[in-house]
Amino acid sequence: MSEAGIVGGTRVSVVDAMTATSAAVDRVLDRLLPRPSGPEARVIEAMRYATLAGGKRLRPFLVRASAGLFDVPEARSLRVGAAIEMVHSYSLIHDDLPAMDDDDLRRGQPSCHKKFDEATAILAGDALQALAFEVLAHQDTHPDAGIRCELVSMLAAGSGTAGMVGGQMIDLAAEGTQAGLEIVSRMHAMKTGALITFSCAAGPVLGAAPPAAREALADYSRELGLAFQIADDILDAEGISEDIGKTAGKDAAQGKATFVSVLGLEPARHRAQAHARAARVHLERFDGRADMLREVAQFVVDRRS
Amino acid sequence: MSEAGIVGGTRVSVVDAMTATSAAVDRVLDRLLPRPSGPEARVIEAMRYATLAGGKRLRPFLVRASAGLFDVPEARSLRVGAAIEMVHSYSLIHDDLPAMDDDDLRRGQPSCHKKFDEATAILAGDALQALAFEVLAHQDTHPDAGIRCELVSMLAAGSGTAGMVGGQMIDLAAEGTQAGLEIVSRMHAMKTGALITFSCAAGPVLGAAPPAAREALADYSRELGLAFQIADDILDAEGISEDIGKTAGKDAAQGKATFVSVLGLEPARHRAQAHARAARVHLERFDGRADMLREVAQFVVDRRS
Repeated sequence: MSEAGIVGGTRVSVVDAMTATSAAVDRVLDRLLPRPSGPEARVIEAMRYATLAGGKRLRPFLVRASAGLFDVPEARSLRVGAAIEMVHSYSLIHDDLPAMDDDDLRRGQPSCHKKFDEATAILAGDALQALAFEVLAHQDTHPDAGIRCELVSMLAAGSGTAGMVGGQMIDLAAEGTQAGLEIVSRMHAMKTGALITFSCAAGPVLGAAPPAAREALADYSRELGLAFQIADDILDAEGISEDIGKTAGKDAAQGKATFVSVLGLEPARHRAQAHARAARVHLERFDGRADMLREVAQFVVDRRS
Repeated sequence: MSEAGIVGGTRVSVVDAMTATSAAVDRVLDRLLPRPSGPEARVIEAMRYATLAGGKRLRPFLVRASAGLFDVPEARSLRVGAAIEMVHSYSLIHDDLPAMDDDDLRRGQPSCHKKFDEATAILAGDALQALAFEVLAHQDTHPDAGIRCELVSMLAAGSGTAGMVGGQMIDLAAEGTQAGLEIVSRMHAMKTGALITFSCAAGPVLGAAPPAAREALADYSRELGLAFQIADDILDAEGISEDIGKTAGKDAAQGKATFVSVLGLEPARHRAQAHARAARVHLERFDGRADMLREVAQFVVDRRS
C-alpha cells in the first residue's frame, strides 16, 4: 500500500490500511528479530513467537500515519513501529506471567510462558526491550543521531515508571481496592496511554515537525489513548474469549479497577465516544491528510476485538 | 578522588580507587533514580532497594578507568557507569526470581522479590532497563548525539540475546546437562563478559579514541571477563554465604555448569591467573596511565568476595 493510502484516507478504509501496515511491520519485525541458533535459541524462539503472533499493530499504524503527515520515508516509520511493537510485546509477555495477571491465553494462543516456560518468557521480554532500543539507535532509523536519541529518550520515558511500568504497578496495587476514577484514569494514561502517545509523537519527531504540529498530535493521542482503554475495558466486561484473543472477564474476576467498574457500562460507552470525538478535533490543522488518524479514533471505540 | 588517582595508579590502591568510584556512582544513581511517589511508589522503592544496595561497582570502575585514559570528564563516565549498573541490577533482580535461579539472598540482603514481591521485582527490573537507555541518550552523557547512539547500541547489543540474556538462557538450559568447557565459556562470555566488554569500550567511545586503542581495550576486557567469571565460580564453590553476599554453593546444588565443574578447582585457579596476566599484556600501549586497569585484573582473581 502506498503512503497516500494512509494519509489520503479516501481510497482505502482504515481497516484495509491497518491490515497493510500490519503486514509491512511484520516483515520488518521478521528481519530485525534474531534467528534461532546456538544453545540460546530457545529465548529467540520465544521472542519471535510472542512478537510475530499477529495483533492489530495499532501502535505501528499510529507511527506510520503520524509520520505520513510530514513526508517521512516509510522505511523509517516502520522501524520505529517495529521497535514500539517489541516493547508492547515484551510488556504483554511479562503481564501474562503467573506473578502478574496470570493469563494463559494471548491473541488466541497460549501465552509465552505457557508455550515455553516462565524463565524463558522473562528473558524473552528482557531481550525484546533491549532490541527495541538497539533498533531506534541504528542509523537506518534516521540519519540524524539527535533525532534517534530523542526517540530513545521518549520510548524509555514512556515505558518506565512514569509510563507503562508505573501504570502496571498501579494496576496490580489497585486490585481489590475499589479504586476510583482518578486512579483508574492515571493507571491507564500510564499503562497504555504513554506508548500510544509515543507512537503519535514519533511521526513529528522523525519529520522534524514544528512545535504546534507536535502539540496537536500529543493532544490527539491523549484522547485516543483514553478512548482506546475505555473500549478495552468494555470489551473485557462483555467480550468473549475468542473475540478478543485473550481471557475475557478477567478484570472483574481479579477485582481489577476498570472504567466499567467505576463508571458502569453505558456511561463508559458514552465516554469512549466522547474521547474519540475530542481526539478528532485536534486534527483540524492537518485537513484531509489526517483522515486515517480521524478514522482510527472511531475504529478503536467501534472495534469488537 | 581525582581522576589522576584512577589513571596514575601510584597514589592510591585499586581497592581505595574502587571504593571512591563506588561512592561517586552511588551519588549519581541516587540522583538519576526516581523518588518514590504516587500510587506507583512501590516499584520505585524496589528499583532503589536493588540498585543502591552496594556491590563492588566493578563495571562503573572499568568505565571510569578506561575513560580516564582519554581525558573524558568524570561526570560523563559516571553517568555511563550508572547506566551499566542499572542494567546489572535489573539482571540480578530477574536472575534471582523463583522461575530463574530462585535466590533469596543478594549482597547479604533479601533479594528484591523477597523484600517486595515477584510482580514488583519483575517490573522494577523492566523499569531499570528502560532508565539505563534514557540516561545514555541524555545530552549530559555526551554532547555528541552520535556517541550517545553508539553507547545505546553497544549496551543494547551487550544485554540482549547476543549478550547477557543469551548467556542466562544458556545457563538455564545447561543445568544438569554436564555441559563441557565450550558451552561454559560461551555462556560466561555472553552472560557476564558482554557487559564487562561494554564497560571497557565505553571509555574509548566517550573519548573518541583511535581504533587501535579500542581494540587493545576490547582484548583486555575479554581476558578480564574470563578471569572474573572463573574467580566467581571458584568463590561459589568454596565460599561461604556471608563472604560473597549471596547463597554460596548453589551452582553445584542446582547442577550448574561452571568452570570449576568442568576444569576442577586447582586448574580453574591457574586459568584465572593466566587470563589476568593476558589481560595486562594488552595494556602495554597505555604505559603507566593504565596501572589501575592492570591492578583490577589482579584484583578480580584475588578477591575473597
